[in-house]
Amino acid sequence: MTKLSIDDIDFEKSQGLVPVIVQDSKSKDILMLAYANRLAIEETVRTGYGHYWSRSRNKLWKKGEESGNVQKVLEIKIDCDEDTLIYLVEQSGNACHKNTKTCFQRDLI
Amino acid sequence: MTKLSIDDIDFEKSQGLVPVIVQDSKSKDILMLAYANRLAIEETVRTGYGHYWSRSRNKLWKKGEESGNVQKVLEIKIDCDEDTLIYLVEQSGNACHKNTKTCFQRDLI
Repeated sequence: MTKLSIDDIDFEKSQGLVPVIVQDSKSKDILMLAYANRLAIEETVRTGYGHYWSRSRNKLWKKGEESGNVQKVLEIKIDCDEDTLIYLVEQSGNACHKNTKTCFQRDLI
Repeated sequence: MTKLSIDDIDFEKSQGLVPVIVQDSKSKDILMLAYANRLAIEETVRTGYGHYWSRSRNKLWKKGEESGNVQKVLEIKIDCDEDTLIYLVEQSGNACHKNTKTCFQRDLI
């Protein structure tokens, strides 16, 4: 499988950020979607744990830093346009800050 | 399970758009990520097939309109912040315009 580097990511489309889909590596459930800039991705790669960029707080954010619900990142996938990532993770505890396993608990319509 | 309506979606954070994660309903593979505005979601609900908003062409876009690789949408999930959707779909043919099943064929690093 082709491997790409952080330099290949297209950060231009969304003001330096890319969406990151976080998927449970075993169940394949989608746990959450967050945003990452270059620094967040570098920290994820360096530490092996999911880091993001908080758009509301405008700062680097390690998932689970306070709650302990960290995400061990086993694999990072990148899409054909190089502007979206998937983190395949082992989730400790719940992914959602509302104390549910995933952030997608409700149906539309 | 709680049901939300289109009026509950927070379109403000990203200039009238929300990211839509498209997931295969059977395999749970993540096929692609696209963006939708209110109109695209209304068309998805009305027709039962995945519609998006093309950011590059600035127009409504029915997935597979030209290629035939349409997406029958079985369920739409919404996240805790009401700013991200999942379309659970039956994908006809390949999801990626590069003729692969999913858009996420490559690893980062």
